[in-house]
Amino acid sequence: MGEFDLIQRYFKSQSHPAAEAVPVGIGDDCAVINPTPGMQWLVSSDMLVEGRHFLSTVAPERLGHKALAVNLSDLAACGATPRAFTLALSLPRVDETFLSGFAQGLFALAQAHGIALVGGDTTAGPLNICITVMGEVPRGQALLRSGARVGDDIYVTGQTLGDARLALEVFRGTARLASGQDFEQVRRAMECPQPRVQLGLALRGLAHSAIDVSDGLLGDLGHVLKASGVGARLDVDALPRSAVLAAQDLTLQRECGLAGGDDYELVFSAPGDAAGRAAVAAAAAASGTPVQRIGSIEAESGLRLYDGAGQALALQFNSFDHFKSP
Amino acid sequence: MGEFDLIQRYFKSQSHPAAEAVPVGIGDDCAVINPTPGMQWLVSSDMLVEGRHFLSTVAPERLGHKALAVNLSDLAACGATPRAFTLALSLPRVDETFLSGFAQGLFALAQAHGIALVGGDTTAGPLNICITVMGEVPRGQALLRSGARVGDDIYVTGQTLGDARLALEVFRGTARLASGQDFEQVRRAMECPQPRVQLGLALRGLAHSAIDVSDGLLGDLGHVLKASGVGARLDVDALPRSAVLAAQDLTLQRECGLAGGDDYELVFSAPGDAAGRAAVAAAAAASGTPVQRIGSIEAESGLRLYDGAGQALALQFNSFDHFKSP
Repeated sequence: MGEFDLIQRYFKSQSHPAAEAVPVGIGDDCAVINPTPGMQWLVSSDMLVEGRHFLSTVAPERLGHKALAVNLSDLAACGATPRAFTLALSLPRVDETFLSGFAQGLFALAQAHGIALVGGDTTAGPLNICITVMGEVPRGQALLRSGARVGDDIYVTGQTLGDARLALEVFRGTARLASGQDFEQVRRAMECPQPRVQLGLALRGLAHSAIDVSDGLLGDLGHVLKASGVGARLDVDALPRSAVLAAQDLTLQRECGLAGGDDYELVFSAPGDAAGRAAVAAAAAASGTPVQRIGSIEAESGLRLYDGAGQALALQFNSFDHFKSP
Repeated sequence: MGEFDLIQRYFKSQSHPAAEAVPVGIGDDCAVINPTPGMQWLVSSDMLVEGRHFLSTVAPERLGHKALAVNLSDLAACGATPRAFTLALSLPRVDETFLSGFAQGLFALAQAHGIALVGGDTTAGPLNICITVMGEVPRGQALLRSGARVGDDIYVTGQTLGDARLALEVFRGTARLASGQDFEQVRRAMECPQPRVQLGLALRGLAHSAIDVSDGLLGDLGHVLKASGVGARLDVDALPRSAVLAAQDLTLQRECGLAGGDDYELVFSAPGDAAGRAAVAAAAAASGTPVQRIGSIEAESGLRLYDGAGQALALQFNSFDHFKSP
């Protein structure tokens, strides 16, 4: 099967962009898209490499899901409505089992979020997946890293922060779980992250800052603090964690939750007064997204960690950096 | 040097998007861009892999140039004004000589075309470069593959069609050139293609169809014919060729010109009457782009090749397909 057959069979045939929104999709030199008047256009690219962003053991369906999910998570962190994406794929060979599974996982998530595949590229080479997503927000309403204010509460989404890292440690042989069922749960967190798109939309005009947790909570929150020129305190024991993670020793729990990475949850800040808290609770309920308050923004720069009893903790973790050994 | 330092040092520091057009560039989860009211948004992605799209011997400056050039060529083929691009880069290691050269070639071309780097990704892995470009056209004015009409003339840009393929054949040891100077000329065609952005803009409202020659003239023109539901005749001897290519035997000349690939010239069709020809000549002159008339669109499907004396030629070439051996 050649390159053009491959594009047609697995990607073009399953791409059904709305004709009004995307007058020209896959099959020309460029896709043509009609931006919605009055909206700003948001763009993000993520590249996934085997051994860095996924293991060779991942099911193709999950890889297709994850490749798009990590990109949708960037749109979610900005409060954007997903519109379109491109897919560039380098493959060692044309493996139809892989491609059909990959396309199935990819398009299931795309359809769930109403985002259209509009173009891309396929080539032979070491396995590499690069997706560029585009979305929209009303002018001036994008959630940014730079908007955190002193007195904001800090929240994180989800109930399984750190599970993805725990799964990686199990794959590496440095952690053990009680059962295969536990393993499947944390493996799912690593391989099937759910981008928090609906919550991102609900946080427009409410959250002062947001970022998604891709490199680890401390590192990603650090980007927010730096961009906003503020500091923060975190209650480490308030971090949500699954029962599987909670069964591990406390050091590993904290390492996975604070510096794990690959979570694709949102960390955001919002007004710490009663009205702000009520609005966040309403946004969480409306979008069906669990959120947990884990700290607050302070004027003093730096990030201070406390346990549930209010005792200061001296912990040192490095967030994930693709050019350092983890 | 870590990932964030690397982004800062080589890419963010050299990216100077206009604040009004790109209120948020590199450094948040997404870039935020203001589309121009009334314009449609055009998107294209290309992924470059070592050994497929470039050789390990390429200078980093030229690789940076080429990675963006092949993407700008897609915008040119649609008649789009370049606006923004993202860069995702997988690197085996942090090599500062490579990165500074790559960035230099990339940004020199970006600045020449007024396109802003707005985001992207860096990771460790086998060398892979994925760029997504975005541009704009007035609503309904994108040049497409599907617009060719019976009676159109067919044109190709440039004076060195096939030189890139000739360079590849020299690298492969299947062709020889008279001098090192000749080699540098064809190598430059392969490594430093010049995207025909200005001509693409000048062809808005004039050309009925356009495509860029990335996989070989016959294959790429074939996409136009198929999308437009027409056929064509080509005068093979009318193909522009450099003196270096013209010194090769006729079979190799024709193979390089018709099926070479990697040219990044535009093939377009425009009205074949006197007014159409005058308008194309004016567009070529205004944009400083050589164009050559090489054939015409016909109702009968298929592509018929003739020599300069009007004799039908029976030639069989395959255009480049990344999943077949060339």
